[in-house]
Amino acid sequence: MSRTCLAVILAAGDSTRMKSSMSKVLHPVAGLPMIGHVMRTVASAGIADVALVLGRDADAVAKAAAVEGVNGRTFLQTERLGTGHAVLSARAAIADGFDDVLVTYGDAPLVTAGPFAAARAQLAAGADVAVIGFHTDRPTGYGRLLVENGQLVAIREEKDATDEERKVTWCNSGIMAINGRKALQLLEKIDNGNAKGEYYLTDLVEIVRAGGGRAVAVDAPEAEMAGCNNRAELAVLERLWQERRRHDVMLSGVTMIAPETVFLAYDTELGQDTIIEPNVVFGPGVTVESGAVIHAFSHLEGAHVSSGATVGPFARLRPGANLAAQSKVGNFCEVKKAEIGEGAKINHLTYIGDAIVGAHTNIGAGTITCNYDGINKHVTQIGANAFIGSNSSLIAPVSIGDGAYVGSGSVITEDVPADALALGRGRQENKPERAKVIRERALAFKAAKKTKG
Amino acid sequence: MSRTCLAVILAAGDSTRMKSSMSKVLHPVAGLPMIGHVMRTVASAGIADVALVLGRDADAVAKAAAVEGVNGRTFLQTERLGTGHAVLSARAAIADGFDDVLVTYGDAPLVTAGPFAAARAQLAAGADVAVIGFHTDRPTGYGRLLVENGQLVAIREEKDATDEERKVTWCNSGIMAINGRKALQLLEKIDNGNAKGEYYLTDLVEIVRAGGGRAVAVDAPEAEMAGCNNRAELAVLERLWQERRRHDVMLSGVTMIAPETVFLAYDTELGQDTIIEPNVVFGPGVTVESGAVIHAFSHLEGAHVSSGATVGPFARLRPGANLAAQSKVGNFCEVKKAEIGEGAKINHLTYIGDAIVGAHTNIGAGTITCNYDGINKHVTQIGANAFIGSNSSLIAPVSIGDGAYVGSGSVITEDVPADALALGRGRQENKPERAKVIRERALAFKAAKKTKG
Amino acid sequence: MSRTCLAVILAAGDSTRMKSSMSKVLHPVAGLPMIGHVMRTVASAGIADVALVLGRDADAVAKAAAVEGVNGRTFLQTERLGTGHAVLSARAAIADGFDDVLVTYGDAPLVTAGPFAAARAQLAAGADVAVIGFHTDRPTGYGRLLVENGQLVAIREEKDATDEERKVTWCNSGIMAINGRKALQLLEKIDNGNAKGEYYLTDLVEIVRAGGGRAVAVDAPEAEMAGCNNRAELAVLERLWQERRRHDVMLSGVTMIAPETVFLAYDTELGQDTIIEPNVVFGPGVTVESGAVIHAFSHLEGAHVSSGATVGPFARLRPGANLAAQSKVGNFCEVKKAEIGEGAKINHLTYIGDAIVGAHTNIGAGTITCNYDGINKHVTQIGANAFIGSNSSLIAPVSIGDGAYVGSGSVITEDVPADALALGRGRQENKPERAKVIRERALAFKAAKKTKG
Repeated sequence: MSRTCLAVILAAGDSTRMKSSMSKVLHPVAGLPMIGHVMRTVASAGIADVALVLGRDADAVAKAAAVEGVNGRTFLQTERLGTGHAVLSARAAIADGFDDVLVTYGDAPLVTAGPFAAARAQLAAGADVAVIGFHTDRPTGYGRLLVENGQLVAIREEKDATDEERKVTWCNSGIMAINGRKALQLLEKIDNGNAKGEYYLTDLVEIVRAGGGRAVAVDAPEAEMAGCNNRAELAVLERLWQERRRHDVMLSGVTMIAPETVFLAYDTELGQDTIIEPNVVFGPGVTVESGAVIHAFSHLEGAHVSSGATVGPFARLRPGANLAAQSKVGNFCEVKKAEIGEGAKINHLTYIGDAIVGAHTNIGAGTITCNYDGINKHVTQIGANAFIGSNSSLIAPVSIGDGAYVGSGSVITEDVPADALALGRGRQENKPERAKVIRERALAFKAAKKTKG
Repeated sequence: MSRTCLAVILAAGDSTRMKSSMSKVLHPVAGLPMIGHVMRTVASAGIADVALVLGRDADAVAKAAAVEGVNGRTFLQTERLGTGHAVLSARAAIADGFDDVLVTYGDAPLVTAGPFAAARAQLAAGADVAVIGFHTDRPTGYGRLLVENGQLVAIREEKDATDEERKVTWCNSGIMAINGRKALQLLEKIDNGNAKGEYYLTDLVEIVRAGGGRAVAVDAPEAEMAGCNNRAELAVLERLWQERRRHDVMLSGVTMIAPETVFLAYDTELGQDTIIEPNVVFGPGVTVESGAVIHAFSHLEGAHVSSGATVGPFARLRPGANLAAQSKVGNFCEVKKAEIGEGAKINHLTYIGDAIVGAHTNIGAGTITCNYDGINKHVTQIGANAFIGSNSSLIAPVSIGDGAYVGSGSVITEDVPADALALGRGRQENKPERAKVIRERALAFKAAKKTKG
Repeated sequence: MSRTCLAVILAAGDSTRMKSSMSKVLHPVAGLPMIGHVMRTVASAGIADVALVLGRDADAVAKAAAVEGVNGRTFLQTERLGTGHAVLSARAAIADGFDDVLVTYGDAPLVTAGPFAAARAQLAAGADVAVIGFHTDRPTGYGRLLVENGQLVAIREEKDATDEERKVTWCNSGIMAINGRKALQLLEKIDNGNAKGEYYLTDLVEIVRAGGGRAVAVDAPEAEMAGCNNRAELAVLERLWQERRRHDVMLSGVTMIAPETVFLAYDTELGQDTIIEPNVVFGPGVTVESGAVIHAFSHLEGAHVSSGATVGPFARLRPGANLAAQSKVGNFCEVKKAEIGEGAKINHLTYIGDAIVGAHTNIGAGTITCNYDGINKHVTQIGANAFIGSNSSLIAPVSIGDGAYVGSGSVITEDVPADALALGRGRQENKPERAKVIRERALAFKAAKKTKG
């Protein structure tokens, strides 16, 4: 589309019903603030200019709204006098004279580029305003779109509607595209001669028609139009987002045994023939290559899982975990900022952080890389084909050579050469009959406590 | 309400379809036996006297029914001759002459105080009996409320209903309020002249009317009226309870990313702006202060989480875990009966039990407080700003001073003074080329086994 | 039923919409490949002979289809010319002359034996073909069953249907039973004189009627008829399967607090009065005896849990885990190929593999059985009433006697006699003021890094 477009995003709401210490549009859906979703959609719709109308937490919202390829300007809305007034907060941007002005909302993160394009196509075809509507079984509370002969006659608020008008199930989403060359002039005609004394953007329809212009409505799926006024509605947005993405992911060739228990992030990438078992949570920044298996009860964030690797159950991959092909991270294991080599195995009760683990190395159960001295983080390097015995502590910075063995229960403070065996543990001593003595002493202690107690 | 009231709670059912070794009303919903829910609602409705009509597991049910502010008397129902007969098991209590008698059920844990109040208000306004009804799309099987001129004419059982009556969608919940001054006399008029030879409480409506009295019905939400005859219905009760409470919690300012995966207990308290990630289970006795974050896959019971603290993912807080502000309990960590100081961190694979951890102390991965000698439990005290190296074992009773360090892999059996370093581990020894020897030996063993096998 | 029957199972589909590297019918539902479900149902329906019509991954499918009591022959479908043609791939089997030929599908794993029996009963009563239909609110896309005077007149494809016929909500499942004595002759009459040039099995209805025979339809529940064309539909099959089985399990006396979060395998067996908390995943091969409790976030596969035992939360039982009565496996514990004695406790952060744990033995937190030397697996034997201190490493093969104690943090390489105390750890040494020195050094290192950086 060669027409220029300014998206005006209203994101100044007080959102008192969110009962939140931060602006509503900063609340995340799928791990990304709502405003980020809106900005990404605007970018994907090929809209290069955005006017953000901000109120609460303006700096934080502006920061969360930054997205590549979009030139965003911010405008503070200082008074709350209605949507028409809010849009005019961005007067300076609108005055720049775009072909199209698209008004949308920071708390409507599910809208896709499709409805934006449909509305703008109407402008291209000569409409002065194109309102995005949706059909619903539950129209109560929404403004109804009154259409005659293909033109939008009015947006009728519920309270002003006749019984007949209330039966209309095509409702106003609030999103609209306005002829950019006339936008400022049209917006300035909105007055506040109503019960609440507010400036309503929806008045544009009748203003356009009164001026002999053409108003139309375009249809969009109800599920894309959901907004958010409280945290129950935020949870609904999250559910709708997840359902949509899970469905797409499954159609692309990913198996999810119980999709309703898998939580994807906005940027999760899953290759074909990956298997995601029930109860898996993806934080942002995860890519999984084809044929990998993510077992139940796994939690991944900022991690890469290569082809044929397996994760979980009960595994946690944190940012910087990079699993090579055929590697395994098993139950009660945490991996953070670590390269795990091809075919390497970290199967049980292990913490690997700030580390490099070589190919085909086996990390025994209970192994800990002691990467933190309370102040600094240090690196552990483990070569290929090494074997780290169970319950070992590897005190970084330290290096274990290729093919080396570390005896179970060892504390490793110095480098271990390739093919060497390192032991760092006490020698076993058996004290015959001593368990009996301990037991009797413990029983006596218990008895004494009872007597005292 | 200054009128006195006796609640008669029928809880004597055999509940054979539960296929259970205990009474149905002892089965928990949201961590509390059903009878406990009913009693708490009765208490919250300001009803001070309860007559519990019991059968199976009478002692256990009476115990589970104990609730502050309610004077509960128990009555054994020895024969199963219908609801009318069951209520008369509490004859002695009814005879005490309350203003109102409210009959409800031990397996109806979702009813709130509202319907009780509505029914009693009808008594105060002159009705002799007020039946609680609910509207439903699936009336099949329920008795229908037949109303004429604002009065309840009869409760018609499904099997006795005409086609026209079956179309009625207002159904009998079974719960009713009866004029307490006339209750005994009315109840005694119920006879068993019917096919099953039982005494039906629902006959009261016609008895009242025959005596020139006034019977009415009041409406209540269907979701509150659900009862329980088998474990599938028990699961439905749990779901309805959870849905209601999650919704309330979200509206109060708590974020739940996936509310359908969060399980609250009857007494869970969550402060504003807390974030509950997917898959969190709350057992009884948990309070979370504002701004805390409970990450995915966490399990909390009897624990307190202060403001700004973070829990999980994969954390378990057991009874007596008390997390101070800004503290952290991370993945694969279990905390039980322990005070965790402000800003203290327990991040990985750790068991802290019967312990005090000072402010800003860092507990390394794999640390275990060895609190149990097989017979007695002992306490571990750790000061502020201490650093416990990974994989350490702290053998209680033991005390670690402020600012002390424990070297990774140490077994600590004696107190560590403030600012001291404690080491209790073997020295590392590297044996060059020895890993190769071990590997060859293991391969030989494997080969030998194969030959034998 | 004394009539002989051949089930022809069509399982040759390319299933391109699955976007899978393996045949659709190998995709599991409840842990069993779809073809396995179909075969088990066929077996449970008393049908002893099966002709598997295979295409992709024929060997793997044949292997997955093997089930006791069923004589399965395989036939390769080399061309894709329609269902009628596909059935004739099994010509040699059909020619053997069974009383009944039942045609069903490898991707219809939810059908139960009931509809098979109902269709075959119609053959026994004289019908030549009995088509299994289902009623649905969403008939779009399905062939409609056109019935007159109790006979099936035709199966009308959506595209060929009149407006009136499209209103029919009784649809063709594709499954049908054919008179086995006439099957070959009838099937050979199907021609490909249609738009697609394919041989449609549904033509049989009109072929039968044209020959003066009797075609009928029998009804089956819609939920049993679901098939699978992509992975979203696979997830729906899984959900339907799980919902059905969970319901049955609850009615049998098992408590599931949140059944929608419990995933059963095709062969999971749960005794009465077991309690399954939210978020439990059962892999194949699990039996749980009555009165056991499986806490939240547990993962079981190939394990046996005896009466009164408790598992989890956060426990993983792997194949060969065998828990005796009253034993406990707690949080962040993994048990694999191990006998856990009566009343034994494995409560925290432990790995027990290839082991025997005696009755009433207590395994301390963080204990690891070091069963793997990188090449071979070895066995750990622990007697009764023993006490293994926390963070111990038991290096197999090794044996701990009855009543023995292992000190916390010990590495045990040699057998421990009964009632002996074994210690294998370093002695504690406190270095006064040394923590301060370390702290200062670490701070200096940090400062230096910053300066460099």
